[in-house]
Amino acid sequence: MSVSSRILSLAVIPGDGIGQEVVAQGLKVLTAALPQDVKLETKEYDFGARRYHATGETLTDADLEQLKQHDAILLGAIGDPSVPSGVLERGFLLKLRFAFDHHVNLRPSKLLPGVETPLAGQPEIDFVVVREGTEGPYTGNGGTIRKGTEHEVATEVSVNTAFGVERVVRDAFARAQARPRKKLALIHKNNVLTFAGHLWTNVFNRVAAEYPEVTTEYMHVDAATIYLVTQPERFDVIVTDNLFGDIITDLAAAVSGGIGVAASGNINPSGEFPSMFEPVHGSAPDIAGQGKADPTATVLSVALLLRHLGHDAEAGRIEDAVSADLADRAGRPARTTDEIGDALAVRVAG
Amino acid sequence: MSVSSRILSLAVIPGDGIGQEVVAQGLKVLTAALPQDVKLETKEYDFGARRYHATGETLTDADLEQLKQHDAILLGAIGDPSVPSGVLERGFLLKLRFAFDHHVNLRPSKLLPGVETPLAGQPEIDFVVVREGTEGPYTGNGGTIRKGTEHEVATEVSVNTAFGVERVVRDAFARAQARPRKKLALIHKNNVLTFAGHLWTNVFNRVAAEYPEVTTEYMHVDAATIYLVTQPERFDVIVTDNLFGDIITDLAAAVSGGIGVAASGNINPSGEFPSMFEPVHGSAPDIAGQGKADPTATVLSVALLLRHLGHDAEAGRIEDAVSADLADRAGRPARTTDEIGDALAVRVAG
Ligand SMILES: CC(C)[C@H](C(=O)O)[C@@H](O)C(=O)O
Ligand SMILES: CC(C)[C@H](C(=O)O)[C@@H](O)C(=O)O
Repeated sequence: MSVSSRILSLAVIPGDGIGQEVVAQGLKVLTAALPQDVKLETKEYDFGARRYHATGETLTDADLEQLKQHDAILLGAIGDPSVPSGVLERGFLLKLRFAFDHHVNLRPSKLLPGVETPLAGQPEIDFVVVREGTEGPYTGNGGTIRKGTEHEVATEVSVNTAFGVERVVRDAFARAQARPRKKLALIHKNNVLTFAGHLWTNVFNRVAAEYPEVTTEYMHVDAATIYLVTQPERFDVIVTDNLFGDIITDLAAAVSGGIGVAASGNINPSGEFPSMFEPVHGSAPDIAGQGKADPTATVLSVALLLRHLGHDAEAGRIEDAVSADLADRAGRPARTTDEIGDALAVRVAG
Repeated sequence: MSVSSRILSLAVIPGDGIGQEVVAQGLKVLTAALPQDVKLETKEYDFGARRYHATGETLTDADLEQLKQHDAILLGAIGDPSVPSGVLERGFLLKLRFAFDHHVNLRPSKLLPGVETPLAGQPEIDFVVVREGTEGPYTGNGGTIRKGTEHEVATEVSVNTAFGVERVVRDAFARAQARPRKKLALIHKNNVLTFAGHLWTNVFNRVAAEYPEVTTEYMHVDAATIYLVTQPERFDVIVTDNLFGDIITDLAAAVSGGIGVAASGNINPSGEFPSMFEPVHGSAPDIAGQGKADPTATVLSVALLLRHLGHDAEAGRIEDAVSADLADRAGRPARTTDEIGDALAVRVAG
């Protein structure tokens, strides 16, 4: 990676709706955080609804070739009501996650001081979800027969491989081992989805034997949603499949400060392809262009990006700046997207 | 149905763990609630872990023949850690739901006065989830190759038919039409599970045209978990697939008073097969036999049973008794399972 050459080559994909606004703030803070001797080179890519309407393209092979050249990707959000549901999701976002083998979809949840939660009391929430990113019901396997008739049958096939499950389970164990509490929960539905469930459970138990210091538990996904609202403090690291991870990380975001602050990394741990960092929220077309979007989730995604590239101290400074900014918000008038970005950049630089 | 002959023939399946204790209270309250001229005839069936260990059987064709004779089924809970995950779930509970074509899995969520919720404030929660019960990822389709090797592949196939989707969507529209707010939300993940998602969405929109008074919305399942904790009052009726329904009804139960009070009905609307009523909670082996289990969810399931059989007034009396009992709990010492059952029976009879 060109990090060693002290150049950070970043692909920037603002995307649709508020994506443009929040990515601008992410870059502002990234610039403020980078060590003096690292030169940031960005290249902006115009993916999303506009390009789709203009050209019918979502993400071409040539696009992938270009994106591959970068050290990392910063994504705002993709999606617009003018495009049929699924076209950009499958044609751009999932295509990219699959093409670049982003099998570790990392989603930390931390309830920071001063941040509102819909939960009563102020539970201590600090866990990270390791969501599998390249298998499960997300593969696009399946199909439809007799479409539009009363005899239509539509299937979706969840594909799970020992190879795919083991690598993400190993990643999660390594993360749990490195954290003070050393706890790891597997979330699945192995009492109903017995084929996939047994694969996940067996691999999990086998790898667990190599990590005697990590305390493990298994939880059904339905029960997990209960614990996420009644005992969120019990979680440290969670590993789960693509769809369950999608569902519980939105819930996790909701209880730990909202999707305004939920960051994520789509990680290719081997570095064979660039990893991609993006806020968990969508393009929110209803508030786009009004300076109302909270750029915090994007800024925290930039911190994940820096940590992934080995700039731990800089990532920590961004996280500290966000904590301080959030703690200061209570009772103050709302700021614009730009003002929040400026404030964070100042804190990071200072 | 023998209701008209003024006999209510009920199959009683206490099952495992706390199932025994809570079903006893359900029967107590049912007896207190029934009109004088309706004779209750119960037959107890010994399904669950004990029978599985003794005979290796979970639910035989002969069992199904017998169960079929009844007007309805009251189930406590099935499941025990001594039985491998999936054996009783697939071999008993799901087998019964599929055999008796329980395609409407009805799960009301109502936050009653005085009941604790993990949510801040005391939101007004009063909605019902119509969960499809016979399709989706619950069909057991799928399989495993190269089991136990590093090349294992495990699949799960979600099967969705126009027939299956339309009947449950119609049931949900009829329920929404009959409620004061007349709102119906479809919950799916049609931007990723595009085959099944488009079937669900198209059928939903087609049926919606027949119900101009019903206000509809579509929501992705991940977003729905956010709304369930931040704006649960927005929901009136929800219709969703088998797996999404499983997940969101546990979350719905958690925010509206806990699984101690969450009731459910596995309904065959045509009456071709008996419907089955059960608490959403499981067998809770950790507290079994100690008189600690809250029988309220089972008692509320009995109310659903009575309403299904046309005894609306009696169902209402049970629900009122439960409301009054819950409102009285705050600050009082905990009661045993039996004491709560007695108190509810007294209120219902009085
Ligand atoms: C937009 C959608 C395809 C995506 C997903 O389901 O993964 C989103 O919900 C997410 O969590 O990143
Ligand atoms: C026990 C299990 C098979 C069942 C389900 O997944 O349907 C349960 O969670 C439920 O919700 O009734």
